[in-house]
Amino acid sequence: MASIFTKIINREIPAHIVAEDERYIAFLDINPLVLGHALVVPKQEIDFLFDLDDDTLAGINVFAKKVAHAIKKAVPCRRVGVAVIGLEVPHAHVHLIPMNTMNDINFTRPKLNPSSAELTQVAEAIRKAVK
Amino acid sequence: MASIFTKIINREIPAHIVAEDERYIAFLDINPLVLGHALVVPKQEIDFLFDLDDDTLAGINVFAKKVAHAIKKAVPCRRVGVAVIGLEVPHAHVHLIPMNTMNDINFTRPKLNPSSAELTQVAEAIRKAVK
Repeated sequence: MASIFTKIINREIPAHIVAEDERYIAFLDINPLVLGHALVVPKQEIDFLFDLDDDTLAGINVFAKKVAHAIKKAVPCRRVGVAVIGLEVPHAHVHLIPMNTMNDINFTRPKLNPSSAELTQVAEAIRKAVK
Repeated sequence: MASIFTKIINREIPAHIVAEDERYIAFLDINPLVLGHALVVPKQEIDFLFDLDDDTLAGINVFAKKVAHAIKKAVPCRRVGVAVIGLEVPHAHVHLIPMNTMNDINFTRPKLNPSSAELTQVAEAIRKAVK
């Protein structure tokens, strides 16, 4: 069965997509740690990041860099942190999180539940900032 | 002034090095979240991960994959998680953390303080597992 991310890639379920190319897609996490928290996903449905072939694994960082720079422009923060956890959805994904403190990237704390309007607004700002 | 990581690269201060090539080095964090927690560092002294040029940024993932697979062989865990935080040492580095639960990659909890003998033993096991 297709993963939830493959369904987003195939436009079977909606998402706040902020960047996309032939191999990767980035969209907002709807239950973010911080507003602007995005997921970068390879279109190839592979369980975990380090199962990707070297070329796809190398490329995801270059794609993520563009998205991270755009998040930093759109969302005031000290850094855009990176996390790969892989205990939930079995389709490799990289979390990009606008951070001001260490606790902003703490996955054990409660997630936010922003409105669709808030997500739409921040997605638009990130999309505009992606070169 | 050279960063603490550059001093490790230059063998000016000791570290439990587990892998190294022309462009990258990996060594154990001496105050790990979980025993086996390692840092992957580009030899080029750049502040943050996404400041690296595309080629070095792409290559660090391929190097980290080798190290992560070796950590998984040497340290029982569900996943080797990835984190890039960048609020402390101003020399880009990727944390690789053997994880069983989400809390294993929570940087707000107290760090461990393993003995040198424990670090030596786990470093040796990881080094043996690096292809």
